[in-house]
Amino acid sequence: MKVGIIGATGYTGLELLRLLAQHPVRPEVSVITSRQEEGRALTSVFPSLAGLANYDRLHYEAPAETELAGRADFFFLAAPHGAAMALAPPLLSAGARLIDLSADFRLREAEVFQEWYQPHTAPHLLAQAVYGLPELYAPQISQARLVANPGCYPTSIVLALAPLLQKGLTAPDRPIIADAASGVTGAGRGASLGNSFCEVQDSFKAYKVVGHRHTPEIEQELSRLAGRSLTVAFTPHLAPLNRGILATSYVAPAVKIDPEELRSLYLDFYRPSPFVRVRPLGFEPQTSEVRGTNFCDLSLFYDHRSGLVKIISTIDNLCRGASGQAVANFNLMLGRPETEGLGQGPLRP
Amino acid sequence: MKVGIIGATGYTGLELLRLLAQHPVRPEVSVITSRQEEGRALTSVFPSLAGLANYDRLHYEAPAETELAGRADFFFLAAPHGAAMALAPPLLSAGARLIDLSADFRLREAEVFQEWYQPHTAPHLLAQAVYGLPELYAPQISQARLVANPGCYPTSIVLALAPLLQKGLTAPDRPIIADAASGVTGAGRGASLGNSFCEVQDSFKAYKVVGHRHTPEIEQELSRLAGRSLTVAFTPHLAPLNRGILATSYVAPAVKIDPEELRSLYLDFYRPSPFVRVRPLGFEPQTSEVRGTNFCDLSLFYDHRSGLVKIISTIDNLCRGASGQAVANFNLMLGRPETEGLGQGPLRP
Amino acid sequence: MKVGIIGATGYTGLELLRLLAQHPVRPEVSVITSRQEEGRALTSVFPSLAGLANYDRLHYEAPAETELAGRADFFFLAAPHGAAMALAPPLLSAGARLIDLSADFRLREAEVFQEWYQPHTAPHLLAQAVYGLPELYAPQISQARLVANPGCYPTSIVLALAPLLQKGLTAPDRPIIADAASGVTGAGRGASLGNSFCEVQDSFKAYKVVGHRHTPEIEQELSRLAGRSLTVAFTPHLAPLNRGILATSYVAPAVKIDPEELRSLYLDFYRPSPFVRVRPLGFEPQTSEVRGTNFCDLSLFYDHRSGLVKIISTIDNLCRGASGQAVANFNLMLGRPETEGLGQGPLRP
Amino acid sequence: MKVGIIGATGYTGLELLRLLAQHPVRPEVSVITSRQEEGRALTSVFPSLAGLANYDRLHYEAPAETELAGRADFFFLAAPHGAAMALAPPLLSAGARLIDLSADFRLREAEVFQEWYQPHTAPHLLAQAVYGLPELYAPQISQARLVANPGCYPTSIVLALAPLLQKGLTAPDRPIIADAASGVTGAGRGASLGNSFCEVQDSFKAYKVVGHRHTPEIEQELSRLAGRSLTVAFTPHLAPLNRGILATSYVAPAVKIDPEELRSLYLDFYRPSPFVRVRPLGFEPQTSEVRGTNFCDLSLFYDHRSGLVKIISTIDNLCRGASGQAVANFNLMLGRPETEGLGQGPLRP
Repeated sequence: MKVGIIGATGYTGLELLRLLAQHPVRPEVSVITSRQEEGRALTSVFPSLAGLANYDRLHYEAPAETELAGRADFFFLAAPHGAAMALAPPLLSAGARLIDLSADFRLREAEVFQEWYQPHTAPHLLAQAVYGLPELYAPQISQARLVANPGCYPTSIVLALAPLLQKGLTAPDRPIIADAASGVTGAGRGASLGNSFCEVQDSFKAYKVVGHRHTPEIEQELSRLAGRSLTVAFTPHLAPLNRGILATSYVAPAVKIDPEELRSLYLDFYRPSPFVRVRPLGFEPQTSEVRGTNFCDLSLFYDHRSGLVKIISTIDNLCRGASGQAVANFNLMLGRPETEGLGQGPLRP
Repeated sequence: MKVGIIGATGYTGLELLRLLAQHPVRPEVSVITSRQEEGRALTSVFPSLAGLANYDRLHYEAPAETELAGRADFFFLAAPHGAAMALAPPLLSAGARLIDLSADFRLREAEVFQEWYQPHTAPHLLAQAVYGLPELYAPQISQARLVANPGCYPTSIVLALAPLLQKGLTAPDRPIIADAASGVTGAGRGASLGNSFCEVQDSFKAYKVVGHRHTPEIEQELSRLAGRSLTVAFTPHLAPLNRGILATSYVAPAVKIDPEELRSLYLDFYRPSPFVRVRPLGFEPQTSEVRGTNFCDLSLFYDHRSGLVKIISTIDNLCRGASGQAVANFNLMLGRPETEGLGQGPLRP
Repeated sequence: MKVGIIGATGYTGLELLRLLAQHPVRPEVSVITSRQEEGRALTSVFPSLAGLANYDRLHYEAPAETELAGRADFFFLAAPHGAAMALAPPLLSAGARLIDLSADFRLREAEVFQEWYQPHTAPHLLAQAVYGLPELYAPQISQARLVANPGCYPTSIVLALAPLLQKGLTAPDRPIIADAASGVTGAGRGASLGNSFCEVQDSFKAYKVVGHRHTPEIEQELSRLAGRSLTVAFTPHLAPLNRGILATSYVAPAVKIDPEELRSLYLDFYRPSPFVRVRPLGFEPQTSEVRGTNFCDLSLFYDHRSGLVKIISTIDNLCRGASGQAVANFNLMLGRPETEGLGQGPLRP
Repeated sequence: MKVGIIGATGYTGLELLRLLAQHPVRPEVSVITSRQEEGRALTSVFPSLAGLANYDRLHYEAPAETELAGRADFFFLAAPHGAAMALAPPLLSAGARLIDLSADFRLREAEVFQEWYQPHTAPHLLAQAVYGLPELYAPQISQARLVANPGCYPTSIVLALAPLLQKGLTAPDRPIIADAASGVTGAGRGASLGNSFCEVQDSFKAYKVVGHRHTPEIEQELSRLAGRSLTVAFTPHLAPLNRGILATSYVAPAVKIDPEELRSLYLDFYRPSPFVRVRPLGFEPQTSEVRGTNFCDLSLFYDHRSGLVKIISTIDNLCRGASGQAVANFNLMLGRPETEGLGQGPLRP
């Protein structure tokens, strides 16, 4: 099994390499690409990887598209938005299977993609792309040749709300509110003043308060679950963490719900899902509880004063919200257990 | 002007001492009390204060109540909840003026206090206590002999919503949602596993998701502003910061509001208020912008998808949310400008 | 293979459980002890471990010593200093093998132990205890029944200096200086004001500037390597990190040393050692490069102005400096490769 | 008193503006320059300054040199190295007084400057430039027209060692070792991968382990104090803090020194110095104790095992190590008390 990583200089690439190094099928990372770091040794860019797998021998390459296809059976596309829709057609034609970690294939409608990002240059692939959230789409993922790995915020928010929406338990005329805080790896690896240490450390901020690009992705999946068109008031915040998302979702229930019933509903819904941990009532969720893992922790609350249900979900945005979820999808596509290579416990503290 | 600080071993006491050291009326801190640190030098407990004012000569004392009254003209009560309602009657009788930083006199109804805290032992003082939020109660504060310094979360949330509610611009049948994150000084100074560095660092958590004690205080003030009884869905979070609160409030407006109009409304409302900064539209608020100061920054957003107004407020929970606000109240009670001794700019970064 | 963990409520216990959960020999953790948490579920104390191994079924116990011996074949003693020297005699007599993570068996001389800690109650075991630093004592460890797992600072400093001292390349009349900074997990799990978030965050401090208890352990091992009695000027610092030690050691060389020669010497010395990474010349070491792993990174510098050699070593104090090293010793004692269960890459960022 | 700030977009510029806003002489900041931000409002670049002094009305300018001179009586040069030596000659000719926060005028020998930085284009000014460390050069500073504000590391290390060296109490044949950790503001404001949050947070690193540019400045001042040429083994580290330097210096004393005598020596030496706090024996120094202030805290230790003296100094690198020290020099140049505008206590926590 030869595996290629396209755009392997970001944090999602680094996290993929960390996870693949201990994967039991021992995938051989055969090619890593970067235009900017072409020729440089992987472990010179990421010294933490020294001594793992075959990584001391890997160098960044910038092969032509035509040459790329033959270099691996399976590609993780970890490049910025826009790159995957150019690369996917030739790679798929050459028989490779793909997991795209960018937004290029997450939205099912090309017009919606265009409204939030840019014109889509491979709209014919949207229908065959599978949204890579295993808890909702495992059967389709296992058959897919192109998986669109979900965004980090959508992963946390869709998992938080799926059981309630699917059961039709929410008031139809009320917006869902999703207030979330993310660690800084969510902004990617790169030099920017806004993400420099002194701007972020010991501070908490809101950003893209209206119109964050994950909004249509969240609404798409919630609407499918509800069977009707939904809007969400989504507010992202930046917390001084490396990793982690905590999302607090507020929902007006269609009927008054007992919290224990609510928890039973969630336990049932997620029984087959090894990575969702429905926590005991009263549990105070914390991002460090899932650090470095593919877990999504869920805590359920009923606020009798306001009549709202509060659902809090935590994930590691870089692992569960990106590369770990990609490895889970990789496992499903290979017909293997979803959990392979993802068995390590949270790095706590 | 002799000033006493009751319970001067916590972070609010330390912050008071920091601010009073450079206050232009040069108040003499004549007594600091602590049962636990009795006899110890102030600068041995708080070495950062060495070399400031008369602090190298101060020692903690634990005087009897009867003796305490004569030691100062003005007292800041920075002790835990329950202590102030015991101390206030004798100190007031002796002619002192008081600012209480605990919750003892914040709630106007003794039964509500009992429901959320404990039975109130000085309910006769509730009517004369003034809620010390200068933007709403400056005239009353200047006449008061007992000021109840607001809680940190209520300060941030009430300032965020006051103009909207007072103008009757919110939909009456919809709960207000206030989702807030605080720095760790909000939990006070003391040894606890939950606030130890390794439990908090690089993590973000929700806590007291339902039933935080600031809820009735928020509802009391919002209801007064609205002229009707309101409920709020309040969710506090803990962020790995020393200082700072950022509160994101979600309100369903009674009518569609243009964001510029909304901003004009806020600018008008807060024109007389030196410590409220209504930020330009689109401004991304951040707690570090107010670090170490008495400022409250407000940012206003209209989310056209959900139809909700989002108002984001940031304060320094220890300064504006406690000791700085106490100094502003002290100024008003002395008939001086609210800003005295509070002129320093944010410590940024 | 049944494994017991004595004192399993601290961070070293948690880290052991994290590492054992993915160990390929699938050791069964059969007993975890704690007097304070007796009867409580493991995952209630450490929710991060939910869903791993058999941990959802484990509860803390406080068995009598006599009963304990039969509960496992192998014990990790993760209790505070003083506990292991009481427990080791009965457990060894019952045939168990032990790795002690406390200081009880690290110092070879009972008098030295008494000088720095307390009187030793099992001095007869000191001779058979093996100092568990695999790079120096692998053959002895593999035969040992009682391994004294090294302290975190000594691990980083002894590995930094071993090749130089063993080759006799240091000036005999000059003290070695070891200036080190540690993350806060080094202080253990527990409520203390000094390690509370607000005291540590955004600050850097020196502590126990003279007389830290790891001093005699460092001097013992360095003296053995040098073949003569050595003193070290050791200064520990506390950095606002969860995990990590970076030690900067200053040595006056006996003769002028070319840095490339120096590096060759280290590469040769550590060729058999899978967890020591001798970094390229000029590499700027950083604790995050080893986070969550058993690696020790070494960087070598020659400062031509002062004529001193500077050697910088980084480890994860909780993994390599405690539980990871214990697992490596466990592997050696079982006759298995040192690296088993320790293959995961650094969690970076 | 009109004051100009050249290069007012960095953190030293921001800190100057913070401090000047509450300076009792009410200096009018009449011009702030930046080529990159020309035309932009100050409070748009630094929103934290909104509402302070005249800052809401200031805009960045990029005036020609000839025009600049008339815009203020006093200039703070907060531009990168190389800019001040071009600007100083015309500004001095026009009668202005200058404090340069860059390295351009710190080294007394043009050749040494060239060796470590670049060729010096105004070497004739080196003789008249005064090294702006008030504890050593207050009389000269008060007469100076050009003050070279010291580097942050040199400030902490020279203050730590001055009394010992001036008294001739150090062994002449032994290098001084200065091991220091700095917060990230020391690297300036700007986008760089190395200083991005995710690279720095929860990590501790050494950098420029050999050959940091502050080395010749430290050696210059220590040599002057000792009356002979000295070398220092200086190792800088980066800690995940916004502000703060802690330097641990190791000195071989010429004779055995009793720690209390040592402390008396320091107390005497620094008696006239309002910003140096010689701490009690045993005090564990911490950067947060001086956060936001011009203090330098000193702690003295004698390590009887190694025979070395350890002196630990802490400063706020941005305040005492740059802009606060510049304000102290400004005060002295105006013939006013050194402490004016610098009276606020440490922001703790």
